[in-house]
Amino acid sequence: MTRVLITGASGFIGRACLDALAARDAEVHGVMRSSDRPAPPQVQVHRVDLLDSRQAEALVAKVRPTHLLHLAWVTAPGESWTSKLNVAWVAASLNLLQAFAESGGARVVMAGSCAEYDWSSGGVCLEKATPLTPASLYGTCKNALRSVLDSFAAHVKLSAAWARIFFLYGPHEHPKRLVPSVIRSILDRQPVACTAGTQQRDWLHVSDVGDALVALLFSDVQGAINIGSGRAVAVKDVVMRIADLLGRPDLPRLGDLPIRAGDPPLLTADVTRLQSELRWTLRFELDQGLRETIDWWRRHAAQPT
Amino acid sequence: MTRVLITGASGFIGRACLDALAARDAEVHGVMRSSDRPAPPQVQVHRVDLLDSRQAEALVAKVRPTHLLHLAWVTAPGESWTSKLNVAWVAASLNLLQAFAESGGARVVMAGSCAEYDWSSGGVCLEKATPLTPASLYGTCKNALRSVLDSFAAHVKLSAAWARIFFLYGPHEHPKRLVPSVIRSILDRQPVACTAGTQQRDWLHVSDVGDALVALLFSDVQGAINIGSGRAVAVKDVVMRIADLLGRPDLPRLGDLPIRAGDPPLLTADVTRLQSELRWTLRFELDQGLRETIDWWRRHAAQPT
Repeated sequence: MTRVLITGASGFIGRACLDALAARDAEVHGVMRSSDRPAPPQVQVHRVDLLDSRQAEALVAKVRPTHLLHLAWVTAPGESWTSKLNVAWVAASLNLLQAFAESGGARVVMAGSCAEYDWSSGGVCLEKATPLTPASLYGTCKNALRSVLDSFAAHVKLSAAWARIFFLYGPHEHPKRLVPSVIRSILDRQPVACTAGTQQRDWLHVSDVGDALVALLFSDVQGAINIGSGRAVAVKDVVMRIADLLGRPDLPRLGDLPIRAGDPPLLTADVTRLQSELRWTLRFELDQGLRETIDWWRRHAAQPT
Repeated sequence: MTRVLITGASGFIGRACLDALAARDAEVHGVMRSSDRPAPPQVQVHRVDLLDSRQAEALVAKVRPTHLLHLAWVTAPGESWTSKLNVAWVAASLNLLQAFAESGGARVVMAGSCAEYDWSSGGVCLEKATPLTPASLYGTCKNALRSVLDSFAAHVKLSAAWARIFFLYGPHEHPKRLVPSVIRSILDRQPVACTAGTQQRDWLHVSDVGDALVALLFSDVQGAINIGSGRAVAVKDVVMRIADLLGRPDLPRLGDLPIRAGDPPLLTADVTRLQSELRWTLRFELDQGLRETIDWWRRHAAQPT
């Protein structure tokens, strides 16, 4: 019997993973902290604070998962890059990993980030070639965890992969992030202050991210693997496409904000591993994904977030 | 008032640090697990299991150290390179670091290792140039902790250094390690099976290591710094010097054992930072240090270890 334990199950990516897990023949246990959304009926919910190692160990001993999909981390916009909680999440993740291995777990996937790469090294990030010299505390902590996971898994014969997630968008995203803030402002008929938006990024719909992560969890692919579309699209093109779809190309104010120091001009995923080893392909092209996201916000923007 | 908290205080290096701390104007708190040696009278002893985050946090809240010298780790010969406890010690060290910072700590030094370096990259290890791609779980875990410490310290304005310790010897070393095993066998008039001993290593007397670590703790040097002699001496030369000092050059059997796979021919420290930034120099030349160590074993070899 496959028993999946997924952490961060009520988060932006976690929700999408639960949807993808519904199609799998597995008993699904989700760790949630908040109760902002009823879990799908097939998910057994555990309200556990993973930063408390005893709670984490008790949970693993109780569930005895065969598969672990670890997404939980500090993710609040504006906080996650520098929060001291990044350090706590490294420790908590290592505690969880050890408990999982000791209880007989077989396969683990953890969420990494494009923030682990050296952003000054080119822009098209390749798992085994791009230097791992992150500039942020967030990227440093993720990369430190990744390095220990790699080595530990090899020593204890645990099957392990590390999903380096790039940029994403879709329903349930935090309203302060780029895509929701643009959609919501335009729905409110407000101007949107933006940077010049020349930065090219790799965008993937959160449903595709969830689908890729679950495919990875049920595969035997080892080590770091980029989760992205493999295509670079400028921020300004995303903003203007949203504005066009909403019929208000007059509202975005490109160039009103400065591009943040350290923001690289190009940051995108080489998806050779994703496509040729995991044999995964996306379902949402950007245009279709933005349409679907706009529709979702039309239905939800009036509600408190 | 300077309050030093030293972990691993009853260990091989910890003992030497306590001796060096005795000359400093500081209140010294030592974390010890075993009671195999009475602590010096000026040391306040705390019997705490640092792998239990609650015990660690309670200790830091009680002592409120201004300075933290963190040496505790899994160190048993033959175990430390691959032990799963390496992972637990990363988590425990991060918990300790956070508690220390939150309680107002000002200066932290943690023990790293030459095992963090890529041993295939030359042999003379330089802090900022030699690649950090460790082959062992031990080295990987130490390097992961180092990377988080660096980034976290920069974010919270904590003064932090990371001591990359090379090879050491001296009183109280584990009897299974090279220098004690050679001395004890020859004192017992037994032949000593050795490798060909062509591997060149950087040897430092443990009293010098303790002295350097305490000097580093009371300095403002930041980041990774090698702790070594800066001189490469072949294993066979150490073995034969011991045998000569004991008048039994006939007992070592150089070449009876194979050199371990992955053991590099040369592994030594560039000590530019140690000498020019910390302005530290060793007191024990190898010959003098080996004489002193032999004398110590003459007095202690008959006792159970």
